[in-house]
Amino acid sequence: MQSNGAILVLSGPSGAGKSTVIERAAPHIGAFYFSISTTTRQPRAGELHGREYYFVDKARFEAGIEAGEFLEYAEVHGNYYGTSLAPVKEALEAGKLVIFDIDVQGHRLVRERLGEIVTSVFITPPSIGVLEARLRARGSDDEQTIAKRLQNAAEEITALEEYDFVIVNDDIDAATNAFIAVANASRYRPSYEKRAAFREQWLHN
Amino acid sequence: MQSNGAILVLSGPSGAGKSTVIERAAPHIGAFYFSISTTTRQPRAGELHGREYYFVDKARFEAGIEAGEFLEYAEVHGNYYGTSLAPVKEALEAGKLVIFDIDVQGHRLVRERLGEIVTSVFITPPSIGVLEARLRARGSDDEQTIAKRLQNAAEEITALEEYDFVIVNDDIDAATNAFIAVANASRYRPSYEKRAAFREQWLHN
Repeated sequence: MQSNGAILVLSGPSGAGKSTVIERAAPHIGAFYFSISTTTRQPRAGELHGREYYFVDKARFEAGIEAGEFLEYAEVHGNYYGTSLAPVKEALEAGKLVIFDIDVQGHRLVRERLGEIVTSVFITPPSIGVLEARLRARGSDDEQTIAKRLQNAAEEITALEEYDFVIVNDDIDAATNAFIAVANASRYRPSYEKRAAFREQWLHN
Repeated sequence: MQSNGAILVLSGPSGAGKSTVIERAAPHIGAFYFSISTTTRQPRAGELHGREYYFVDKARFEAGIEAGEFLEYAEVHGNYYGTSLAPVKEALEAGKLVIFDIDVQGHRLVRERLGEIVTSVFITPPSIGVLEARLRARGSDDEQTIAKRLQNAAEEITALEEYDFVIVNDDIDAATNAFIAVANASRYRPSYEKRAAFREQWLHN
């Protein structure tokens, strides 16, 4: 039962250290598939199709919506962002842990759609002040973008109660170890369907 | 927030390998307190007060019930079994992981009483046939006891859906690693109260 795939949703403000945590945890969490979103927005400098996003045009995206290809999608500032179902299903069937780095709204949609097999974790910096300092130190955003990120963070933190696990990233090693534990544990949450089947088989073997 | 204590309930049939898993996992799960139950039954050969159980008489136990000293208790075959609240509180306040090895009924009571800070894991042998073979190989039970244990196991397995995590123990190393992950992850499930307090403080620092 436990070799089966699982779903792990990771949310948290930009600047919480999610990418670093995933990168450091990667060698310690078994086979996983990091879900790549599809978007209609233009690629930025350095972004690659199939790495940061799958970049498609609006007509293609809307055809995908029509065909029920998306696990979840949303329109943000006139651009579509979504998660295709097919690679997720394929990874699950291969026994992989599927990791989503999505926002609190995406988490709600994924949980609604995939139910009790979803494990979710919110990674946050210790305070909004620390977040602001990190964003400034990173130096990749202008003032307006920083202000927007802080505003988003203040909204996202209100969803803290909706997550199974909360990791406060004030130490990258501790946060990584916490994430490794959550990721490995998430593989041991079989669906109710699988539990029922296991029980039947358990009693007759 | 994450240095706080947590509650981990471990259930599963006698013969599932719970004691072995805990013993092997112990060096890898940080500071923990293994909750010791109180009972009115007579100690068996080799059992020590304060190790297997706290052995008390019926009058003492009933006074404890009256005084609200028990987190949960039950009467089984004329004997009381229960969990005292005081050492659990003390361990939680010291930031320890409190581990309960209790049955499915005890799990229901603990969850009802302690709510969302409880993480629960059900450890099971791969099948009732394997369980029977293990109990016989262990050689410590007579036929009547084995029959009773198998009957209890068949009842307990119906509660599989109530647990956060399910570990099928068909390989002791894999089961131990799974338990270590669940135990370490369980420390990152702050109470709703703590999350609300963190959020407030987060926004103002």
